[in-house]
Formats: sequence, structure tokens, C-alpha cells
Amino acid sequence: MIAFIAEPHPGIVCWIHWLNRVRTSMTNKLTNKLRFGLIGTGRIGPVHAETLAFRVPEAQLVAIADPRTEVAQKLADRCNNPRIINTGEELIADPNIDAVVICSPTDMHADMVVAAAKAGKHIFCEKPVSLSLKEIDRAIAAVEAAGVKLQVGFNRRFDSNFLRVRQAVESGEIGTPNLFHIVSRDPFPPPLTYLRPSGGIFLDMMVHDFDMSRFLMGEEVDEIYATGAVMIDPGFAKEDDFDTAVAILRFKSGAIGTIDNSRKSTFGYDQRVEILGSKGKIAADNRYANQVVVSGEKCVYQDLPYNFFMQRYTDSFTAEVQAFTKAVLEDKPTPVTGADSRMPVVMALAAGKSVKEHRPVKLSEITA
Amino acid sequence: MIAFIAEPHPGIVCWIHWLNRVRTSMTNKLTNKLRFGLIGTGRIGPVHAETLAFRVPEAQLVAIADPRTEVAQKLADRCNNPRIINTGEELIADPNIDAVVICSPTDMHADMVVAAAKAGKHIFCEKPVSLSLKEIDRAIAAVEAAGVKLQVGFNRRFDSNFLRVRQAVESGEIGTPNLFHIVSRDPFPPPLTYLRPSGGIFLDMMVHDFDMSRFLMGEEVDEIYATGAVMIDPGFAKEDDFDTAVAILRFKSGAIGTIDNSRKSTFGYDQRVEILGSKGKIAADNRYANQVVVSGEKCVYQDLPYNFFMQRYTDSFTAEVQAFTKAVLEDKPTPVTGADSRMPVVMALAAGKSVKEHRPVKLSEITA
Amino acid sequence: MIAFIAEPHPGIVCWIHWLNRVRTSMTNKLTNKLRFGLIGTGRIGPVHAETLAFRVPEAQLVAIADPRTEVAQKLADRCNNPRIINTGEELIADPNIDAVVICSPTDMHADMVVAAAKAGKHIFCEKPVSLSLKEIDRAIAAVEAAGVKLQVGFNRRFDSNFLRVRQAVESGEIGTPNLFHIVSRDPFPPPLTYLRPSGGIFLDMMVHDFDMSRFLMGEEVDEIYATGAVMIDPGFAKEDDFDTAVAILRFKSGAIGTIDNSRKSTFGYDQRVEILGSKGKIAADNRYANQVVVSGEKCVYQDLPYNFFMQRYTDSFTAEVQAFTKAVLEDKPTPVTGADSRMPVVMALAAGKSVKEHRPVKLSEITA
Amino acid sequence: MIAFIAEPHPGIVCWIHWLNRVRTSMTNKLTNKLRFGLIGTGRIGPVHAETLAFRVPEAQLVAIADPRTEVAQKLADRCNNPRIINTGEELIADPNIDAVVICSPTDMHADMVVAAAKAGKHIFCEKPVSLSLKEIDRAIAAVEAAGVKLQVGFNRRFDSNFLRVRQAVESGEIGTPNLFHIVSRDPFPPPLTYLRPSGGIFLDMMVHDFDMSRFLMGEEVDEIYATGAVMIDPGFAKEDDFDTAVAILRFKSGAIGTIDNSRKSTFGYDQRVEILGSKGKIAADNRYANQVVVSGEKCVYQDLPYNFFMQRYTDSFTAEVQAFTKAVLEDKPTPVTGADSRMPVVMALAAGKSVKEHRPVKLSEITA
Repeated sequence: MIAFIAEPHPGIVCWIHWLNRVRTSMTNKLTNKLRFGLIGTGRIGPVHAETLAFRVPEAQLVAIADPRTEVAQKLADRCNNPRIINTGEELIADPNIDAVVICSPTDMHADMVVAAAKAGKHIFCEKPVSLSLKEIDRAIAAVEAAGVKLQVGFNRRFDSNFLRVRQAVESGEIGTPNLFHIVSRDPFPPPLTYLRPSGGIFLDMMVHDFDMSRFLMGEEVDEIYATGAVMIDPGFAKEDDFDTAVAILRFKSGAIGTIDNSRKSTFGYDQRVEILGSKGKIAADNRYANQVVVSGEKCVYQDLPYNFFMQRYTDSFTAEVQAFTKAVLEDKPTPVTGADSRMPVVMALAAGKSVKEHRPVKLSEITA
Repeated sequence: MIAFIAEPHPGIVCWIHWLNRVRTSMTNKLTNKLRFGLIGTGRIGPVHAETLAFRVPEAQLVAIADPRTEVAQKLADRCNNPRIINTGEELIADPNIDAVVICSPTDMHADMVVAAAKAGKHIFCEKPVSLSLKEIDRAIAAVEAAGVKLQVGFNRRFDSNFLRVRQAVESGEIGTPNLFHIVSRDPFPPPLTYLRPSGGIFLDMMVHDFDMSRFLMGEEVDEIYATGAVMIDPGFAKEDDFDTAVAILRFKSGAIGTIDNSRKSTFGYDQRVEILGSKGKIAADNRYANQVVVSGEKCVYQDLPYNFFMQRYTDSFTAEVQAFTKAVLEDKPTPVTGADSRMPVVMALAAGKSVKEHRPVKLSEITA
Repeated sequence: MIAFIAEPHPGIVCWIHWLNRVRTSMTNKLTNKLRFGLIGTGRIGPVHAETLAFRVPEAQLVAIADPRTEVAQKLADRCNNPRIINTGEELIADPNIDAVVICSPTDMHADMVVAAAKAGKHIFCEKPVSLSLKEIDRAIAAVEAAGVKLQVGFNRRFDSNFLRVRQAVESGEIGTPNLFHIVSRDPFPPPLTYLRPSGGIFLDMMVHDFDMSRFLMGEEVDEIYATGAVMIDPGFAKEDDFDTAVAILRFKSGAIGTIDNSRKSTFGYDQRVEILGSKGKIAADNRYANQVVVSGEKCVYQDLPYNFFMQRYTDSFTAEVQAFTKAVLEDKPTPVTGADSRMPVVMALAAGKSVKEHRPVKLSEITA
Repeated sequence: MIAFIAEPHPGIVCWIHWLNRVRTSMTNKLTNKLRFGLIGTGRIGPVHAETLAFRVPEAQLVAIADPRTEVAQKLADRCNNPRIINTGEELIADPNIDAVVICSPTDMHADMVVAAAKAGKHIFCEKPVSLSLKEIDRAIAAVEAAGVKLQVGFNRRFDSNFLRVRQAVESGEIGTPNLFHIVSRDPFPPPLTYLRPSGGIFLDMMVHDFDMSRFLMGEEVDEIYATGAVMIDPGFAKEDDFDTAVAILRFKSGAIGTIDNSRKSTFGYDQRVEILGSKGKIAADNRYANQVVVSGEKCVYQDLPYNFFMQRYTDSFTAEVQAFTKAVLEDKPTPVTGADSRMPVVMALAAGKSVKEHRPVKLSEITA
């Protein structure tokens, strides 16, 4: 079963109102703050630290764990001075912490989740929990055994655009969804050394679109056909990876759709979706820093869309942590469960198998 | 080899100017009009009749052939009174006719092309020349043997939007094209009885997008994977057809892309393309009757896009006949050749085979 | 009283359909064609000649009058060979002509209208009938005495955008109109020698917007305050004219609005309107040759809008002549009457007086 | 002289980057925080309190003054527990406060500014400082005598849209500005009791657009003609006010422009500007919570724009306080000075006089 936002986006109502509702309901009902420990201060760690320190009144950032003490201290200075701890293990052991945010390197995620679960902490874990289904299953089992809450960082589900699309599908605004197209393109390729550890384009990049496809369509995929190309940098081929990839998804209802990915869209981050339903079409465009149009002597132009995920998804990074905090404090299900973190990996593995065997692959073929 | 518009759309210049250039160059150079006979007055015949009568000064519509005399007479009354002839054969035999426009039912196209070629007439033939490669090859051979000109009615190539996209690819405006997506959706499904004779969704509908993909990308496809679904009307399944279909195309350069088709987009005709290149992205949107936006109490809205091909492609139906007239009068290659009419059928057959055998199919597998 | 389009644009329906309806109704009901004579082959004459020859099946262009025989002959060659006549007077005297289209220089309009009316011809006269109210009144009186039909060439009323706005106001779609803004900007200034004979920016340029304001709001103006500036070319000041001008209009209902004009918008013809009503806002944007957007390395851009009135208003030039032909053949009121041609001149004179006396001026102050 | 943003928005760069630059530069250079006291917790007070508590790391909110202790306490609970003080006077007297944010009712602003200046506090004062020029002058004189910094809350100057427009004018991107249009419309009218104390539509509403006009054009106005209407609620007439108003502004350079205001735009907050320059046009549109477009059965639609200033200007409320904090800490001029707060009031008084005397009024006529 797919878990969606507990409190759906009702009708044509703006995102801000929704956030205000979340916030107000929290402010009114709760007296104690949720005490957070943050593990890892790499790329996404500081984003979550700032969110906890400045944007979730019900949260309190009490500790940051990172062996690089200097980096951690700088972040702590900025974020109301939580304690600095050397390792995630120590942080997890701290009895004054209610919940952990795991932002360490991917290969440590599953172990951290298991350790935190055993210590009775609620867990917000960055995606992916693991590239191995076995590891994911181990983590989920530990969470379930401990009875703690787990939310995985598929932040795009909290973007006001994609939430609006989801709401249209859920409410029947566009009828039964028949056909979709998801575009996901990075502004520039990562360093080639990043590729192998990342698991390649399907596990590292298209995995987000696999999650989006399930979230937006509200049902599960039956079969995937995928293919890739090396169009941007021949170095990708040496790493046994693609810089450009497309896939066809067939859902259990019979609905079909396509996804396209590129590691390089020179004009900025390109993240769009479109769904055709029996009663209409819904399409979410990119987001821009301003709404200014210049009519010049040669063309009519506007500034480029947001450059990358930090700009584009600023609000959704905040919203996912607010939603997690709310879920824990009000003892409700988190909006992105362990199961939600497992299925996109199954899909990415199916896509990889499809490429390798040059044929469509059923998800039921992916057993581990 | 793919034939493109002889005179490319130079830089950021509007369509009107291009048409005016075509028109002016013709007006200046020619003294004799090209005498046309039109065969068939069904759906598209009257469009071409009006174009010849009213919108191409260098053309003269001298005869219309249709066994349904009454219908033909009504059309003749409107279009400066060309002669009414009972059969296409008689019209082809008329020595006062220089060129024929073949708008008869599809299964007669190849025979008509062969007959017209043997009679030394230049030929504008509605698409497809045939659903059988053998028949297409027979028609092309006859045209080549006779040394006459043949243009096939892939009118979308003359749409100002798609021309602009083609020009961007050709001029390097977006760099090397790496990835594309083509959307082609009809406003409502045809009657179920239409389906079998049409050859099904790949030969009847996606065939246009296959043509577009070659035209816009400027290169040939190597392999196709296609799949379909019945989401709109279960009657499609009974006819062994799909109402919804998607395909992945792999080009010889390695570039990849997707096409999606639906027989029902409730909001009107949905015909868009997008290409991602190494230097940027180009996207062509739908066309609207007006540019009016209303901000109401519940939403911000505009009128629907053009409902179907007659409205959307009005100008391109005119432009293709102007281009054919110009090609004949100036003895230059036509912009859509016999070879251009053959390859999309190869692609549609490959798509059909892909669905049947549930695997990607190379175009080289389609031998007849 | 203001005359509007006899057959209003019903609901959210596209322009093409409306045209088709007009065309169909004519085709079905009429057997005789309306025989037209065209006087003057300057800038707009050839447009009307082509419309009559190619785009109104119920019209027949039988004669063209212009003393410049060579120019007239070239146009005749293109337009199905109407007769060439030396003067407008001779053409008006021709008993085989039912209706005249007056495209001679402005200072001859009123005399031509009077002569044509006396000869019993129906009259389509380019705007303005005259810059002098006395002359306009003389022309209107002659038309009324003769019982012929007069339509004045305020073609913008037939633009699908402005028609859609008018329809929204008329149908109550935006409630009661309270506030409006009209933008009208030429791509480049005319030669300075053009200015004095034209009557200056208010009589030559803003006069169209005065017409639009009455047409769109559906009521009469009570008072105008106008001011101008010379921002583009100091030569305008020497001609006692402005290249930039704005006005505030107060309608009899109390509604208010602004107009702005510039003789130079480097990016093309800029013709937009916006009306705020008690239930919503409606805004008509410019028109573009294509709907293509390029996302490049520095900005997101599209081609410029249509460059000038010939491109932007192509369809409305056709539609106004179709509407006139229909009005005459079906003996119904023309959609732009003599009175409609008078009031914008009153408004332009009021604007000029406002500038001269540096104060708001009531239209009732303009008596001749 | 008009004060602009010290650090201009350089080229086509997104707002986020600019903010990050501001933030980073502060973080790097400063060690001490600026200690703030907030006076007044009405509508805008809580916004500034949250900004100080959560979004400006260099700021510390140490005290809140409001006689309504309960309201103040609730806000303090939310904002890291600053002290609650009964009156503004007491707060101003507190030696541990470096700067005050004055959000009390308008008629107390000038006295507060004077008192704070005398106490040596830096001052961020909500607009307007006063509706009386004499009072504004008194406040400015006190600020200058004390040598403290004053910034007035014209937050719209910090909106990413208007900043981008200003940057285009300043950099010459659109050439010399010749013509402009400013639209400013509230979603719904205030209670009628609000009107008289507010000073009416010109002092309460159009005053912001007067500020925008100076800011965006970068020069001073010479003359204003204004007029108003009561179109929404007859109650406005009883209060001797308008609910709809327009004005023509003439700048010292000769450039001209129009402003329109309405107290009711049913679709939400409507805040747009457009400037035509010698090299192009720039236009800023409204802001939307999402970029989703739905193509339905009757129209193509999107959700309404942000409903009111709290949503639309969220970021600019933050940015102005960040800019003030930076100006004080780095001892640089504030971006909106006392003089900037005076001139829009002069303009509003001129507009009022124009309406009363039914004639254009020079700003030089407004002496006190």
C-alpha cells in the first residue's frame, strides 16, 4: 500500500494555507517540543539543520553528529548551538533525543536506521535507505520491531506543484489517469567518480521519478522497459552508466507512461510531470525566481528556472520535516513509509535488468 | 535520405514572412499557372480544393473527380467552378491537367499514384501512400520511372511551430539533440468501424509522430519499443487495437526519445513536441484561437486550444500545397518525398511487431 | 448608440467556428454575389482586394480604381482580373457595382462617401471618415438620405482577442466593468512628414483605442484627460506632436480607465487590453507566429510577437469585409456604423484640447 | 536623492543567490548580533517578530512591547521568548536594545521615531511614518540629529519581481524608460471604518505605487493628475473616499505613466508593473503558489494567484529586515531612507489635490 499525505490538499487552495494549517494545528495542540539529533553534515544535512532550528517551532535541534568537528561546529553556530557529537552511534545513544535525522553517506543508512530503531528513536532517513533490497528489508523489520516511526526523504512529494497534481488525481478532477510523462533533468552531470557508488542513473536519478509515478498515479507498476544512452560525456560509458535514459511504465490498472532523464539541461533544473486523464490533463511546470518577462529587440525572454534542487525544493525540504514532526508528535503514520522507500528501488532494479536483458521486465521478477 | 524544406526558416523570423517570400518569389518568376486536378472530395479533398482555388495564385483548379456528383458539384460551385469528372482515371487521362492531388480512400492511393505517374502527371498524394511497403515501393518505382514529382501530405512538417523546432535543430540553436518527447492526442476517438481499415493506432496515428521524429531530429531511427493500452473504450480491444500507446525510439546517433498517443483528450487536439539538446531545450505548445486570459473567482482560465486538425493545421495544409506548386513550377525537389512516406510505415510496422512480440524491434527487421 | 457585432461570440467558442458559421449561413442562403469596386490601392487597398478575391465567396471584385494604372494592374493580375478604372468617380458611376470599398487618402473619404451614397452604393470606408466632425456629419447625412449601408474600417473589433473580451463584458462573465487599461504601441515611428496630415497621435493612433474603449466597455465616455511626451525622436516636437501619450477616460457609468500609446516598441506591435470587473479580470495578450519556447543557456525565450498590423490583424481584415458583405446581402445593420466612426474623433479632439488646455475635458465640450 | 538597494541584483541571477550572498557576507564578517526590540503586535508585528527570531541569524529579538500582554506573550512563546514590555517608551529606554522595529498604529509612528532616535536606537519604521509632511520632517530631523539609521517598510522594493525590473532599468537592459503602468489591486475592500483614519485611497494604497514608480524609474515625478470612482461599494462615497482610482504621472525626464488601483479584485492580490523603454519592455506578473495547469473539458485553468500581501510578499518582508540588519551592522546607508518615506506622501497629497481641484497638480505645489 502506498502512503500519501495524511491531510490532503483540499481543492484549489494554496500551499501556504496548507502549511499554515499544519503549523497552527501543531501550535495549538502541543506543549513539548520534539528533540532532534542530526547525523551527517554533508550536502543535505545543513538544510535539515536549518529547518529544525528555524522553521519548525515544535522541533528542537539538540545535537549534531559528524566526525568533521569543524564543519559541524560552523553549522551549530548558525543553528542555535546544538551540541556536537563525534559519531552517529553516540548520538543515537543519547537519551535526551527523541528523533534522528539520518544524512550520513548512503551505505551507512541501513545500519543507522537499525541502530536508531533499536534505541527507540523515531527516524527521518534520507533516501535511499539502501540500494540493496535485503538491507532495506532489514531496516524496515527493525523499525517495525521497535514500533518507532520511519519517514524517508522523498521530498518531492511535498512540492506544491506535485502535491497539486496528486490532489487532482485523487479528487477525480482529471478523471481516471490513463497516460503520464515525467521529466527529470539535472543542470549538469555529477563527477564521474560519483556514478558507481550511486548505483547508476536508474538507482540514483530515475528512482525519484519511480517514486513520483507511484505517488501521483496512486497505484503500483507492473512492468518496466528502460533504455539509456551516452550523449553528454563518454566517461559515463566507462563507468558502465548512462547520462540520458528513458523508460516506459505499465501500471496494474493498464495505464502507461514514460519517464525521461538527462544529466545535463543547460538551462537549469527541469522537473515536470503531466498526466492525461479521462476528463482532462494536468501539467506541472518548473518554478522561477521571478515572474518577469522582457520583450527585447530579438526575442521575448525571462530568467532561467531555478538552477537545482536546493532552490527548487526549498519549501518541500521544510515541509517534509514539518510533516514528520507532526506525525511523531500526533502519533499518526508518516507520509513516506519504509515500504515507499522499497518500491522505487525495486523499480530501478527492474529498469537496470530491462536494459541488461534488452526486454521489458515485470516487477515481480525482482525478488531481492 | 530525408528531404527537408528546401528553403529553411532563417533565424527568428515569422512564418508569415516565410510564406510571403515563397509567394513573392513565385509571383515574380512565373507566368503560367499549374493546372490541378483533384481526386476525391471526402474529408481532406475540400481543404485542398479551397487552397488551390483561393490561396495559391500560381495554381488553377481545373477539375474535380468524384463519383458522388452532387457533392463534387457543391464543392465546384464554391471553388471557381472547375469541371466535374466521374472517376480519377478519367481525370488522370485529361491532357489539360499538369498535376493531381490524390484524396481518394487510402486503398486506392498506390494505384492512383502509379496511374498518374504513367500519365506524366506530378503528384500530391495524401498520406499514407499505402499501409503495405510493397505497394509503396511499387508507387515510388512508378514515380521514378516516369520522372514526375511526388509529394506526400505530411502537412505537420509545414506547421509554423514544428518548422521553428526543426530550424532550431538544423541551425544548432539547441546544440546536438539528445532526447525528445512527442505528444499527439486526438480530441475524441473515431468510430470503432474506422479502426481495422486504418491499420490501427501505430499505422493510423503514431505514423505522423514517426514522421515528425525523423523530420525534427534530422536522422533515422534504429530501434523501437512500443506498447499500448485500452483505457478509453473497451471496443478498441475487440478491434485488436489500442486507444492509448507509447513508444521509445532509439536513433542511429544514439539519441533516444518517447512518443505518447491517446485517442481522447477532452480539452481538444494536443500536438506538442520537445527536444533537449546539448545547448538547450525547445518546446512547441498547442495553438489557441485567442490569447485571452480570464481571472475569475475560482481560477485563472483561458479558452481551450483548437479542437482538431482542421483548425490547428489550417495554415500548414495551405503551405504544403504552396510548397508543392513551387517545387513543380521551379523544378526543385518536393519537401516530402516518396522515401519520406515509406519510412514512417516501416516504423509503424516495427512498433506493431514490438507490441506483438513484447520486445524492442530493429527497423532492419522490417523487410516488407 | 453603439453598434456591436450583430451575431455575438457565444460562450467559449473559437473564432474559426464563428467564421465558419458566418460563411455557412451565407453559402446556404444566397445565390447572387455582391459586386464590389475598390477605390485606392495604397497600403490597405491590396489587403481588401485579396480578401474580396479569395476569402469571401459571396463577394466579387469587379473593378479597381486608381490613377496609378500600373500599380492597379499588378493588383488586378493577382486578384482574378477585375477591371481597372482611372478614378473613384468613374467607378462609383458604374451601374454594375453594388458596393464600394474606399481606400483612398483620408482627405478624400468624405467626398467619396457622399458620392457613393448618392449613387446608391453600399459603402465600406476605411477609417477615419474624416478628421473633421462637420465632414463626418455630412457623410453620415448623405448615407442616411440615400438609405445605403455604411461600415467603417475599425478592424480591431473583429480580432478574435478583442471579440472575446467584448463577449465577456456583454455576457457578464467578469461582472460590471469598473476599470480598464488599453495598450497600443507601434513597432517604429512613421516618417515625420506623415505626422501633420495624420492629425497627430490622438487622431491617428489613440483614436483606435478610443473606439476600442467604447466597443469593449459597451458605453460612452464622459470626460478625458490626456497628456503626451516626446521620448523617442525630438522631430515629433517640431511637428507639434507626441511620440508617447497617455489618457484617463471616465465613462458615464463612473467606470474609469487608462490608455497608453507609444510610436516605438522595439519588439513588435503591442496591442493589449485588460478590463477589471466586479467578478473578475479579462486580459488579451499579443499574438505570436508560433508557440515555441527555447530554454537556452542564458534565458528562456520565444520569438517576437507579430511585427505590425498586417500580420496581427490579418484575420480581422478578412472578418470585417465578410461581415459587411453579410450585412448588405442579408439587409442587416453593419457592425460599425457612421456614428461609431464619429465618436472616436470627438474623443481624439477632446484629448487634444485636454493637452492644450492642461485640464480634463468633457466630451460635451466638443461641438464641432 | 533616491536610495536604492546598496548591492544591486547583478544580471540574470536568482533572488535566492542574492539572499545567500547577503547572508553569507554577514555570517562571515560579524560576531555580535544586533539586539532588536519590537513595538506593536498587530498585523505586521508578528511577521517581523518571526523574521527576527527565525530568518536573520545576525538579529536577536530581545523584547516585544504591547499593552495587550496576552497577545504579546503568545507571540513571544513562538519566537524564542523575548521579554514582554508594556509600552514602546519603556522598550525604547532599554539600554540592551540596539534597534527598534516600530509596528504601532500609524499616528504613533512619528513620536516613536523621535523618541527612539533620541535614545540612540536604530529604527525600522513601518510605512507611513506619518500622513503629515510636518510630522515626517520632524521625525527625519530627529533621526539626522541623532545620527542613527532609519529604514521605512516599503517592502515591495525587496520583491524579487520588482527588484528584477529595477535592475533592468538600472543596467540599461531596456534602454531609457519612456512609459510605465503600475497595477495594484486588493482582493477585497477594508471595512469602511478603516478608510478615514487611513487617509483614503491615495495615502493608504496608491502611496505604495508612488514609491514603486520612483524606485523603478529611478527619478522624481513632476506632476500628477488623478481621479477616482466608487464602483464597488457606495459606502466609500460616504467616507469621502474612492474604491477605484487612476493617476497619470509625469516624471522630470518627461517620461509618463499610469497607475490603477482597485479595492476589489475577486481573483486575489493583483500587483504588476510594466515599463516600456527605448530598447524593450519589461513586465512583472503576479506570483502563484504552484505552476500547475489543468486542461479541462471547458477551459484551460490554473489556481488563483496569491491572495494577499502576506503570501505574495513573504520573502520581501524577510529581505527588508535582513537588509536593515546588514545596513546597521556594516554601517552602510539603509536602502529605504526617511526621504524615501516623505516623497510618496507628497505624491499622494498631490493626487488628492488633483482630484479635489479637478486639474493636474505639480509636486512643487505641495509645500506642507
